[in-house]
Amino acid sequence: MSRTEISKYGEFGLIKHLTERFKNTNETTLKGVGDDAAVLDYRDKQVLVTTDLLLEGVHFDLMYVPMKHLGYKAAVVNFSDIYAMNGQPKQITVSLGVSKRFSVEDLEELYAGIEMACKTYGVDLIGGDTSASLTGLTISITCIGEAEKDKIVYRNGAKPNDLICVSGDLGSAYMGLQLLEREKIVFAANSEAQPDFEGKDYILQRQLKPEARKDIIKTLADKGIMPTSMMDISDGLSSELMHICSQSNVGCRIYEDKIPINYQAVVMAEELNMNIVTAALNGGEDYELLFTVSMDDYDKIVTMEGVGIVGHTTKPELGLHLVGREGEEIELQAQGWNSLN
Amino acid sequence: MSRTEISKYGEFGLIKHLTERFKNTNETTLKGVGDDAAVLDYRDKQVLVTTDLLLEGVHFDLMYVPMKHLGYKAAVVNFSDIYAMNGQPKQITVSLGVSKRFSVEDLEELYAGIEMACKTYGVDLIGGDTSASLTGLTISITCIGEAEKDKIVYRNGAKPNDLICVSGDLGSAYMGLQLLEREKIVFAANSEAQPDFEGKDYILQRQLKPEARKDIIKTLADKGIMPTSMMDISDGLSSELMHICSQSNVGCRIYEDKIPINYQAVVMAEELNMNIVTAALNGGEDYELLFTVSMDDYDKIVTMEGVGIVGHTTKPELGLHLVGREGEEIELQAQGWNSLN
Repeated sequence: MSRTEISKYGEFGLIKHLTERFKNTNETTLKGVGDDAAVLDYRDKQVLVTTDLLLEGVHFDLMYVPMKHLGYKAAVVNFSDIYAMNGQPKQITVSLGVSKRFSVEDLEELYAGIEMACKTYGVDLIGGDTSASLTGLTISITCIGEAEKDKIVYRNGAKPNDLICVSGDLGSAYMGLQLLEREKIVFAANSEAQPDFEGKDYILQRQLKPEARKDIIKTLADKGIMPTSMMDISDGLSSELMHICSQSNVGCRIYEDKIPINYQAVVMAEELNMNIVTAALNGGEDYELLFTVSMDDYDKIVTMEGVGIVGHTTKPELGLHLVGREGEEIELQAQGWNSLN
Repeated sequence: MSRTEISKYGEFGLIKHLTERFKNTNETTLKGVGDDAAVLDYRDKQVLVTTDLLLEGVHFDLMYVPMKHLGYKAAVVNFSDIYAMNGQPKQITVSLGVSKRFSVEDLEELYAGIEMACKTYGVDLIGGDTSASLTGLTISITCIGEAEKDKIVYRNGAKPNDLICVSGDLGSAYMGLQLLEREKIVFAANSEAQPDFEGKDYILQRQLKPEARKDIIKTLADKGIMPTSMMDISDGLSSELMHICSQSNVGCRIYEDKIPINYQAVVMAEELNMNIVTAALNGGEDYELLFTVSMDDYDKIVTMEGVGIVGHTTKPELGLHLVGREGEEIELQAQGWNSLN
């Protein structure tokens, strides 16, 4: 691959070069890249805003994450936060800090991934900032979305005896990460080694190219189900459940045998001598939706594809517990991804 | 000063600790920090979005920038972009990447500066993200603002024979930076040396604690002046004029003797053997407003305090020129702050 130095373009030229292919498609986007600020018109809709900062060496490792996947994932994880409010992502801004290690081609790949995510989810790129960094790559994305006035779902609306639901499966992205870390160590020891990814495509994809659950939000709306609380699972089910329970002032019981786990993740955990339930509870980066619904919606939820009921909320004084396969109760701990520890 | 390690709080505890003093005051802010996304309601107003990424060692040097000033400035430079659209900033998100070098007290100082800026300009802090970084401090701020539908001023509306206006004075922030750099070198050579800042308070303040020109936007509205184009001067007058001229498809003549320069900046430039006009044209970080108005508004503009007419636009084929004190014409060059070179 050819290598063009970033200095060839300069800051304004570089932004223009990287963003000129992006076309605005949302009617709420009046003006995107190219002025002091972007201009949006949300009329009678409410505006949702979320932001995420990704730092090389902390949130991603370019040893095994291709730039295009990184761009896709960086955008999608922000969309996921907007869906988790029962909204629709509409615009993003992308700010980059890049060191001289990176070429224009690297950034083109990153933007190709962002573009693919924007196209898939119907989101416009409306601005950003690119500057030099002394070390590595920094990506800061802010996503703006819309929601109907009375349709926003917060974390604080769960009531005792609501059903606790989870989309997709949990722990796969974490097992994908463990696999990549293992192969990185193998490769460091022997650079001739070929990575052993056979039969592991699903967990790799969950780690490298996660999707946001736009489909689940649509199905919930189609079925007329309005969750009482919702958030996306980025730091692990335990940690997120603790947020919902604390903000809603409820307790919870979830059942170990109800936690949705993919077969490839189970096999990987066995290979690595890890506990897959711990990975599902604390692994993070699943970007699935965790939500609660009223017991009245049981019939609708139980027939919904891609969603499982993992437990129920309780009065707050009953605490937060995982019920094991033998009926034993284990207090939930937030181990999550605490990158500051 | 006591030192509390960031690990004492963990990510969620830290955000809560740093932001709990902030109170939302804008009616457009329905929900701030604490969910997957913030919720805003802009009703019939249009929404402005701008974002800025600041990296330690590239955009700021903690050797001479106190954390509180850094927080203030990081917020204010974003507000400046919203005013430059003829809007009002209303909300910000703040994302931080922090290495272990920083204590909780450091971040409290940073947030104290952000809080002061928010109070001064009537802006709510509505979200953000705090994570570990391997090296130094990264600050990413996104600012959201509002504007009346027909009141937004873009960069592309200037017509030939408009007046080119600048608020305040130019080059002072750059001379303040030169002074700080000089004292840093003196201090490195002799750590007993006391910095020599006498009679330099204005240029230091312009560098360390710049203000956004909310007052100018208000006066323009009060006087019924609608600029034909506008932007804020963050990269130097030359560079910004080139943006306005290229987006508006006009040329320009600006006059060296009309460029507003402060006395302290002149003295500093002499001390350092630098050309103050070059500093005013290319220095950057002034955060003054550059705007064009129709010739019909001459009488209103000429009596406006804090604003000077520096030249006029022309047909595009006449090019972009600075007219020197002897009448000589010099083609404008964008040297600006090109941190990518």
